[in-house]
Amino acid sequence: MRNFEEKTIASQTIYTGKVVQLQVDDVQLPDGRAAKREIVKHPGAVAVLAITDEGKMVLVRQFRKPLEKTILEIPAGKLEAGEDPGDCAARELEEETGYRATGLTHVVSFYTSPGFSDECLHIYQAEGLTKGEVNPDEDEFVELVECTLDECLERIQSGDIMDAKTVAAVYLWQARVSSGR
Amino acid sequence: MRNFEEKTIASQTIYTGKVVQLQVDDVQLPDGRAAKREIVKHPGAVAVLAITDEGKMVLVRQFRKPLEKTILEIPAGKLEAGEDPGDCAARELEEETGYRATGLTHVVSFYTSPGFSDECLHIYQAEGLTKGEVNPDEDEFVELVECTLDECLERIQSGDIMDAKTVAAVYLWQARVSSGR
Repeated sequence: MRNFEEKTIASQTIYTGKVVQLQVDDVQLPDGRAAKREIVKHPGAVAVLAITDEGKMVLVRQFRKPLEKTILEIPAGKLEAGEDPGDCAARELEEETGYRATGLTHVVSFYTSPGFSDECLHIYQAEGLTKGEVNPDEDEFVELVECTLDECLERIQSGDIMDAKTVAAVYLWQARVSSGR
Repeated sequence: MRNFEEKTIASQTIYTGKVVQLQVDDVQLPDGRAAKREIVKHPGAVAVLAITDEGKMVLVRQFRKPLEKTILEIPAGKLEAGEDPGDCAARELEEETGYRATGLTHVVSFYTSPGFSDECLHIYQAEGLTKGEVNPDEDEFVELVECTLDECLERIQSGDIMDAKTVAAVYLWQARVSSGR
């Protein structure tokens, strides 16, 4: 493996917000030339792949200001400082959907936009779902939607599901179903 | 479907860079309360799901400054202003890997981080691959890696593949192989 490291020459914090921090770095490329890198720091997030006893995926519809529209996603939320991702997954699942899980197992973690952000998203699989009360965050307005695998695949085709973590979760579910696991 | 729209009261552009633009909006929530939304505007990107005649996925290893490490991803790149995503996919595939495709078919589009960014990523499937010269962008340093499906799944398990679009592409490939398509 060759060394492609970009050495930091200078780093400037442009903005520190509630969710993200914007930083611009001057770097030296492997060939010695200079470049700028715009970096959005993010605390990380979790999402939950939850399939009901009826074989339906638990989804939430919510308004996303960056898109100026409501989209369909698996339950998810930002990590609080120092919070265990598994605890966060359990909390977000219950707050957004009312479902409680007897167990949550880590499935996969990935960087959502490694070109400009360090956000890492951890997907957990929920087991033993039971339905309770919906209790969303103060500034969160969500609607519960439950879909079969075929419905999820149709919604990906039609553009009704257009969220990276949700697309990944649906394909993973499809791969498991197709391979009989 | 209920209306969860967040009305913009004020919008401030904090930073305009080469890749991203940071904007902070004051919004009115559906219940009338006020909140702030931090929004990272991005031109969008494409990525290519390319499987060689030997049944291997075409990947590139590259340094990602936000993560301060090299990661393994499917070939991808930012959209230029007004560029057709299919043309961009063909260009990035050839620049980064040396592979040319006789055809590129749109598979899926998704928002990578809808909570804070409008980045939309379009995945194309490449057909009819032929190998030519690698010719990366001036400030891009990439290494070609080719992996079987089993190797990709192992690399997801081990954390060697930790990129959202690549994880989604591998699961899609697995689902297709498992269902015999």
